[in-house]
Amino acid sequence: MKLLKRTMGHIEEVLIDPHGEIASKFKAFAIPKGSLGRLEELATIYASIKGGVNCKINHKKIFTLAGDHGVVEEGVSAFPQQVTEQMVRNFTEGGAAINVLARHIGARVIVVDCGVASQVEKNPYLKIKKIGLGTKNMAVGPAMSKEEAVRSIEAGIELIEEELEKGIDIIGTGDMGIANTTPSSAILAVLGQMDVDSVTGHGTGLDEESFRRKIRVIKKAIDTNQPNPHDPIDVLAKVGGYEIGGLAGLCLGAARYRIPVMLDGFISTAGALIAHAIEPKVNKYLIASHVSAEKGHRMMLKLLGKIPLFDLNMRLGEGTGAALGMSLVEAGVKLLTEMATFHEAGVSEPHIQ
Amino acid sequence: MKLLKRTMGHIEEVLIDPHGEIASKFKAFAIPKGSLGRLEELATIYASIKGGVNCKINHKKIFTLAGDHGVVEEGVSAFPQQVTEQMVRNFTEGGAAINVLARHIGARVIVVDCGVASQVEKNPYLKIKKIGLGTKNMAVGPAMSKEEAVRSIEAGIELIEEELEKGIDIIGTGDMGIANTTPSSAILAVLGQMDVDSVTGHGTGLDEESFRRKIRVIKKAIDTNQPNPHDPIDVLAKVGGYEIGGLAGLCLGAARYRIPVMLDGFISTAGALIAHAIEPKVNKYLIASHVSAEKGHRMMLKLLGKIPLFDLNMRLGEGTGAALGMSLVEAGVKLLTEMATFHEAGVSEPHIQ
Repeated sequence: MKLLKRTMGHIEEVLIDPHGEIASKFKAFAIPKGSLGRLEELATIYASIKGGVNCKINHKKIFTLAGDHGVVEEGVSAFPQQVTEQMVRNFTEGGAAINVLARHIGARVIVVDCGVASQVEKNPYLKIKKIGLGTKNMAVGPAMSKEEAVRSIEAGIELIEEELEKGIDIIGTGDMGIANTTPSSAILAVLGQMDVDSVTGHGTGLDEESFRRKIRVIKKAIDTNQPNPHDPIDVLAKVGGYEIGGLAGLCLGAARYRIPVMLDGFISTAGALIAHAIEPKVNKYLIASHVSAEKGHRMMLKLLGKIPLFDLNMRLGEGTGAALGMSLVEAGVKLLTEMATFHEAGVSEPHIQ
Repeated sequence: MKLLKRTMGHIEEVLIDPHGEIASKFKAFAIPKGSLGRLEELATIYASIKGGVNCKINHKKIFTLAGDHGVVEEGVSAFPQQVTEQMVRNFTEGGAAINVLARHIGARVIVVDCGVASQVEKNPYLKIKKIGLGTKNMAVGPAMSKEEAVRSIEAGIELIEEELEKGIDIIGTGDMGIANTTPSSAILAVLGQMDVDSVTGHGTGLDEESFRRKIRVIKKAIDTNQPNPHDPIDVLAKVGGYEIGGLAGLCLGAARYRIPVMLDGFISTAGALIAHAIEPKVNKYLIASHVSAEKGHRMMLKLLGKIPLFDLNMRLGEGTGAALGMSLVEAGVKLLTEMATFHEAGVSEPHIQ
């Protein structure tokens, strides 16, 4: 609990362009005012977090956090549980979508076992922050203890701290965990105080029968555990997951060190909801990349007050949406730091300002 | 006219994944079916144009075509005409937004004078395809002759042919030309048979008085010239522009050599509308990047049957939206060619297919 408390205490409020220097710099560029749209917004957020216009992105890191979920035994996923471990190996071998996209944008992927249900083979490309061998079945009792919930968050904070020396300018969040749309929907229903029916989607491709079962299971989990919507650690413990705690920790840890966080999809944003409920100042460090095809994601983003950068009908997780979003932030930052002004380029300013 | 006719005669219809091999490859990847959303769609379009799954993107080229417009004398732009020439110099010096974004995605920018109103200083980074020293004022007569219109299109085709040897796997379109939202709105109104009021926007930032004047000028231009909506070359000649003809030529030339075209914003899409009206088979080679904040762009994309990849409130032109879109296509193609299958990765397939 110490690390979490210390981290919370050190998160500073972000003031967006407090001295107007970022806006002034954009205004001086040889372009019509505002014509770069949200690229200017992204650069402004990044530079504000970093403390000014002299910023750069050298180190982009995507954390893909894996965990298993006891609730899988209720038949809420189209895939068998061993896929979590198999995909972890695929990530460390470089063959997954997130590896391809990270290479494309020049980011590093950090693969983390937060609680896979089996002992994953050791591997130099895998970090171990294992809280347990998968959570317990939340349909019959709490997914984990409160102590485990705190440890899972602290593991995410540690991941940030362990990368500080190597350099870390912006992070992307990512996840892998068979059945993890189920706890994520539960977290949204509880923290957003919403109907389970309205927040639950088809995950990796459930048929209608399994989908209706998933809704019943989430309702049962909430009913059985009675998570307190005003206590995010209670919510994480009762209906969350180890990798979701880790994702919350990434958000808190990154905010503590003034590192912008590019959110991925449904699971990553569930983690962000927990982090935001723990410490609302984390909000301005968070940037939404895409809106996932998974039903509840749009509602999660609304709760955080975020407008996604794109809607490409993706629903893979792993950090794939975050990778694309990070590249847009980098584009914005390069515009801020590399463009010529009206004056430098010898370009006439408009008649009408 | 010969080059244009020959080009039209050689454009082949694109069949999207005719043997299903692209879909099969995506189905074999260790991901839930369809979970890559539009990245799969982009890869499918690219691979279909290129003839199969063994494709790669080595050479990305963005053509930024510049031209001036006699109609500027009616007071339809917030910027003075000399900005076109000044920005051309800025492009060749690498200080403009398109240069920054092209570097970011690893593309080359090819800057072309299609009809700037002054003699632009020679420069190794500038290509000259000058049809005239700016068009005439379309509010009082045709912007150019029919012969010039054909030559401007053929200039765009030549640009493609001149790059073939150096390598050209995908192109982005881009524009620069003070006042060029005015002819672009006129083209949309005529080809789309729409009200001028509903297709005209604020361009680079007109105040309300200038905006109302712009609408009156476009109405007058259409009224005076009576362009034939069923004759795209007549439309281009009467209410178009040299760089817009060049953009149409880029689309036709690229299609002739089975090169996908990433469209930029309002002006680029006006060029694409002309190309599509000349030869509808060009359509499947065109990919929409973003939807511009300029009012009529969404309607143009609808006429072409295209759904944009993102809406970032950009309205700069130059090829800036196209650059971001090209990077997404490349991401999709890399996923198609670099990902591991369920079998290769040793990942279990879903219970439910």
